[in-house]
Amino acid sequence: MHSDVSFALWSRERQTRIEGVLDRALAAPAGPAAHLHEAMRYAVLGGGKRMRPLLAYAAAELTDARVDAVDAPAAAVELIHAYSLVHDDLPCMDDDVLRRGKPSCHVAFGEATALLAGDALQALAFMVLGQGPGVAAEDCALLGRAAGVAGMAGGQAIDLAASGRMLSAAALATMHRHKTGALIGAAVHLGARRGRALDPQTGAALDRYIDAAGLAFQVIDDVLDVEGSSIALGKTAGKDAAQDKPTFVSALGLAGAKAEAERLRQAAHAALAPCGAAARRLRELADWIVLRSS
Amino acid sequence: MHSDVSFALWSRERQTRIEGVLDRALAAPAGPAAHLHEAMRYAVLGGGKRMRPLLAYAAAELTDARVDAVDAPAAAVELIHAYSLVHDDLPCMDDDVLRRGKPSCHVAFGEATALLAGDALQALAFMVLGQGPGVAAEDCALLGRAAGVAGMAGGQAIDLAASGRMLSAAALATMHRHKTGALIGAAVHLGARRGRALDPQTGAALDRYIDAAGLAFQVIDDVLDVEGSSIALGKTAGKDAAQDKPTFVSALGLAGAKAEAERLRQAAHAALAPCGAAARRLRELADWIVLRSS
Repeated sequence: MHSDVSFALWSRERQTRIEGVLDRALAAPAGPAAHLHEAMRYAVLGGGKRMRPLLAYAAAELTDARVDAVDAPAAAVELIHAYSLVHDDLPCMDDDVLRRGKPSCHVAFGEATALLAGDALQALAFMVLGQGPGVAAEDCALLGRAAGVAGMAGGQAIDLAASGRMLSAAALATMHRHKTGALIGAAVHLGARRGRALDPQTGAALDRYIDAAGLAFQVIDDVLDVEGSSIALGKTAGKDAAQDKPTFVSALGLAGAKAEAERLRQAAHAALAPCGAAARRLRELADWIVLRSS
Repeated sequence: MHSDVSFALWSRERQTRIEGVLDRALAAPAGPAAHLHEAMRYAVLGGGKRMRPLLAYAAAELTDARVDAVDAPAAAVELIHAYSLVHDDLPCMDDDVLRRGKPSCHVAFGEATALLAGDALQALAFMVLGQGPGVAAEDCALLGRAAGVAGMAGGQAIDLAASGRMLSAAALATMHRHKTGALIGAAVHLGARRGRALDPQTGAALDRYIDAAGLAFQVIDDVLDVEGSSIALGKTAGKDAAQDKPTFVSALGLAGAKAEAERLRQAAHAALAPCGAAARRLRELADWIVLRSS
């Protein structure tokens, strides 16, 4: 898509595109496991900002990758994200009944089916990624690392252990680098890896961008949990305080958290300075991450 | 290892080998997610027959693969199996407190950590597989398919829906082709894919072998659930009847189930007839699957 297309149009086009890719990956429920299949579709389709796919498509523009080469990794990271939401909402975890504006998966399908739906979505992520054109085994390893104990699942464990404790902004940053930053990093790198090889300078710039944009996303999530409504967010607002979770708002105050998000937005832009015009969509995504209202 | 080595020695050597591979893949717990890391090690190490890794190593002999090329796929299938046991034992699934002769993971570490340990073990499986020498993205897709809704997770969903119902032996076979057969098939094919390319005849022979040996495994599992003790099995015996689950014993009677297992053992041997001496370990594994006492 030409560079004179607005971010609103570009992102809408990519969101529509990934919705189709995910719909095809989750073929219509049939056969003896149809109920599970239906729960998987429920958890993935018709909701979500698709931020991770957008990051993959945006990063791919840096290396002149073909858009259709990005579909598989973009879908894979979204499937991992969707599974993590299903499991996070389970009674033994956050015990939340509202997600993406609908009853949580376990409310709609029962706890056992939700557990299996999350499990099967994680497996599907690797199946979709592994079937993608030009994908290498190292790409699968990269996603596995980002999803596992050194990444997302590890971050969730740190989060669990932190409930009811006061954490410094630095300790919070460590937690979120695992919990959300690792998968955001996988989205960016898997997208960028679909085109020509990255020079080391651009690779380092992307890592700085991931760190800043990933943390900014979480800081704004914490702000929205305080300022947003459940209807606008599509998930239960005010949950962090109710569950006594340490957040950037509890660590820095509301104004301090907003200032930190703005600082991180600028840091994301600064990180991309060596990347020129090809990083336009990544810059716009950093703005969107901080300026969004849901 | 030379073909004059007994099965007992061969399997012990491979079990020791895979234990080391798994131990290295699950590096010592450290850092902020150490508790999760410890739960993962607890769920995987120091127990289990390692049947799936043995099948991978055995199948690799058919294509003259190097043993060290099989380590990654052998570990990957065992990590998938181990995660499935952790999730199956959770209160919202089978709610079992005993596994591999120890308290189940959620009894030892709590439900939330057990959920995350299973999730992180699945991610680790793909990370280990993707980092293996000579592994292709298609291998990751193959494992993802076997673990997902069309395989293991789908079979578990069928199993859930079948509780309290009477199933025919044919319907049971469909369930178990998903629930255990798919991952057993992945173990065999991922092992065989580490050497020279399979000719179509050998590929078809392996598929018949997988079907027979996989079902035989499940039939004997059902027999042992009736005849075995919890101490010998390392898991709760008599669970199927207590949970009113349809089994091959409930469908065929105890003597009928044993006869069916013997028929399947012979079918596994017949399947391998075109494969010659290189299939020796696969034949021995079919015998072991049916003649085992735990």
